[in-house]
Amino acid sequence: MIQLPPLEANSSIPLYRQLYAGIRDAIQTGLLRQGDQIPPTRELAQLAGVNRATVAAAYELLESEGLIRGHVGRGSFVLGSGDKPRTREADLISFATSRPAEQLFPMQSFRATVNDVLADGRLSSILQLGAPAGYAPLRRWLREASGLATPADEVMVTSGCQQALDLIQRSMLSPGDTVMVEDPVYPGLKNVFERGRLRLVPMPLGADHVDPAQVERLIAAERPRMIVVTPDFQNPTGASMPVETRRRVALAAARAQTPIIEIDLYRDLRYEGEALPTLKEMAPEAEVLLLRSFSKIAFPGLRIGWVLGPQPLIARLVEAKQWADLHSDQLSQAILLRFAESGRLQRHLEQMIGAGRECLAAAMEGCERELPPGTRYTRPQGGMNLWVTLPEPLDATELLPVAEREGLTYLPGRHFQIEARASGQLRLSFAGLPPASIRTGLAALGRAVRSELERMRTVERPTPATAMV
Amino acid sequence: MIQLPPLEANSSIPLYRQLYAGIRDAIQTGLLRQGDQIPPTRELAQLAGVNRATVAAAYELLESEGLIRGHVGRGSFVLGSGDKPRTREADLISFATSRPAEQLFPMQSFRATVNDVLADGRLSSILQLGAPAGYAPLRRWLREASGLATPADEVMVTSGCQQALDLIQRSMLSPGDTVMVEDPVYPGLKNVFERGRLRLVPMPLGADHVDPAQVERLIAAERPRMIVVTPDFQNPTGASMPVETRRRVALAAARAQTPIIEIDLYRDLRYEGEALPTLKEMAPEAEVLLLRSFSKIAFPGLRIGWVLGPQPLIARLVEAKQWADLHSDQLSQAILLRFAESGRLQRHLEQMIGAGRECLAAAMEGCERELPPGTRYTRPQGGMNLWVTLPEPLDATELLPVAEREGLTYLPGRHFQIEARASGQLRLSFAGLPPASIRTGLAALGRAVRSELERMRTVERPTPATAMV
Repeated sequence: MIQLPPLEANSSIPLYRQLYAGIRDAIQTGLLRQGDQIPPTRELAQLAGVNRATVAAAYELLESEGLIRGHVGRGSFVLGSGDKPRTREADLISFATSRPAEQLFPMQSFRATVNDVLADGRLSSILQLGAPAGYAPLRRWLREASGLATPADEVMVTSGCQQALDLIQRSMLSPGDTVMVEDPVYPGLKNVFERGRLRLVPMPLGADHVDPAQVERLIAAERPRMIVVTPDFQNPTGASMPVETRRRVALAAARAQTPIIEIDLYRDLRYEGEALPTLKEMAPEAEVLLLRSFSKIAFPGLRIGWVLGPQPLIARLVEAKQWADLHSDQLSQAILLRFAESGRLQRHLEQMIGAGRECLAAAMEGCERELPPGTRYTRPQGGMNLWVTLPEPLDATELLPVAEREGLTYLPGRHFQIEARASGQLRLSFAGLPPASIRTGLAALGRAVRSELERMRTVERPTPATAMV
Repeated sequence: MIQLPPLEANSSIPLYRQLYAGIRDAIQTGLLRQGDQIPPTRELAQLAGVNRATVAAAYELLESEGLIRGHVGRGSFVLGSGDKPRTREADLISFATSRPAEQLFPMQSFRATVNDVLADGRLSSILQLGAPAGYAPLRRWLREASGLATPADEVMVTSGCQQALDLIQRSMLSPGDTVMVEDPVYPGLKNVFERGRLRLVPMPLGADHVDPAQVERLIAAERPRMIVVTPDFQNPTGASMPVETRRRVALAAARAQTPIIEIDLYRDLRYEGEALPTLKEMAPEAEVLLLRSFSKIAFPGLRIGWVLGPQPLIARLVEAKQWADLHSDQLSQAILLRFAESGRLQRHLEQMIGAGRECLAAAMEGCERELPPGTRYTRPQGGMNLWVTLPEPLDATELLPVAEREGLTYLPGRHFQIEARASGQLRLSFAGLPPASIRTGLAALGRAVRSELERMRTVERPTPATAMV
């Protein structure tokens, strides 16, 4: 077998696509030749450190493009080097990643901020080993700026929200523990909790986020160790909790003495409507860990997030953090503190909200105009994502190669789902794209959906067998 | 709150003294800083699994030494690191941390390097989300510069060596697995592996590092899942493996198909003698993960380390890394790449070696001149640490307050030990101090040792009770 390029799992390109592209390139560059056998899914999964479903998806795509063919009991073999006209990867409009547009990064502000830090008398101590809880001046600033910290609360810095979720899983939960999570949910959360062998109880999301009565019933019935919610512009659906839902969920958790993990990454990116209170504010008696991050506003490559919550819980997370990586990068902590203190963060946020509003409008207009009847989609008031349900019987995974030939890519719903169910859903991350690309991309999605519906109608149906009597 | 060392119920040191010492160490090593709140007695009692009176006694002692202060209704806070009859923190000569001296950071080079990165056309993509395996140009540079990578090897970037150890524990080992480790050993390794509930088989270290015959026997008898060694200037002992030991250990592990974790942080800091080959070079057939870092040369606050090893093992670590924190800070990766590529790293390393050579000479001279007969110490040829064995019956933990009154601090050996044993050992991290401070500090240590020996001789012995008849 040839050496495949290492998979970059956080790339905007899904793992199975990277695997597909690696093998396709190997075929097209002649490293793999016609008749060469390719490894069974189990073997390649082990080699590449991914699960078998990922390999299977890559093989399906290779087979659908005529690059390989499977033979029952014999394995899969290279067929040839393909032909069909495909869109080049670089030209694809990617709705696949929930992250801010690089084009909107305030580079001048960033350079000015770094220059401030370079001139800071504390620079050499910033570059020295620091404290596991984070750079003290940043922690103080975050605590003040939150406006939410009680005297019993502490702030700790994490390497992004992903690390906060991981530290929570490691230090507060044990295998077999029941945790209530939104369904669909952010894959990084699902993955961390599944690796921790937690028992995930899904709270199905609708257009109005979770159903509070159902959440109350589940808390009573399941007695979870923890409940994890994203009240604002949830990833992947874009749904937000109405204020009454916030109140009921927070109170139900407080009554059951169930800690709440409140993922609060998107709150600042509200393009429409009025800001709603956090669950932490709705029920001061609830035990809430609030997870926040700079990464959705700017510079996610700096990996700085934080957790605000009751001191004893933070103490456990800090302990886990110390042995995970000692502490987060201090230069970036100092840069983001300066960015915030100088007022540049606030000015940039205003830019981001303006740009996001245009993106959201383009996305809504595109969905309405381009997607055929029978397609449903959420209508977020902020954040970065919306959730599309394709007309029956379309499957979002099967549609993906068609969509990519039309010029766009996205993540199929299965990446986000906790319980198996409808396969016709997909996430569109709209906020990292220029409005013109959003419009072009949605037109392409509309074409893909229509052509696939057409194909389904004309495909030959198997004749039902005569009843055996 | 920081991690406190686990309390030892059977120790001759009362629990409250252990708790006191843990918090004092945290303050003196900077894990707790001035103004940090310390938990209410009830909370800490719960966390540490002791009763409130024990915590209250520890706090009283800390308060009496001027380390913390309680405010009615607000809790207790770190004041500083003591005053009164004790030397003020700022004046204490700290041999407690194995890290480079902040005074030696090449700040002008650092600023120039950052300015290069700010001018780099790729800056905005550096600030965008990156790949779990690390910033590709840095990975390429590390791979080339190592001179050790075979075509089957890959490089991944970690948030320091600490994260590499944690990812190895998480992705390659399961609770109950046997791992062979040096004894004494770096506490961050011991702690991570103990938290992973591994079974640690100690390889006792002497002046010549491990005994190769013993390692061979242990590998055969214990069939470990992994063996972890630090061949150059081991932390805490400063000992290095002779070349013949390297060969025998590498071959024994290769024969048993036991992966080797080779911690290779100090290699570049050789002040005397000739460089010796890595275990990876000694036995190309062995499965070796080489752990390296920038943190011992400069700027540990940037938290950039890396792992070099066979692609399938790296793939597992990268997958674990993705869910731990997505990826390491990219700005710092780009800065350190530029620092290295520009030749500044090499020039700085030469400075560090020159300075380290003076530190080592001052430390050796100080030990010889100042420590009373009966004191033993290692004679490292590089790195940052040496290991002192006090004359019997001195205890390094009990000596610490005496030493601090004389003006120096250090970490007692118990932080590093795997199996309980002699308590008369301590680590001196010499490389982060100016030579004059090393000399002053060792003179102070000599006074402390002599005064404690004197006190032990004159202390009243309990008169044996008359037998009851």
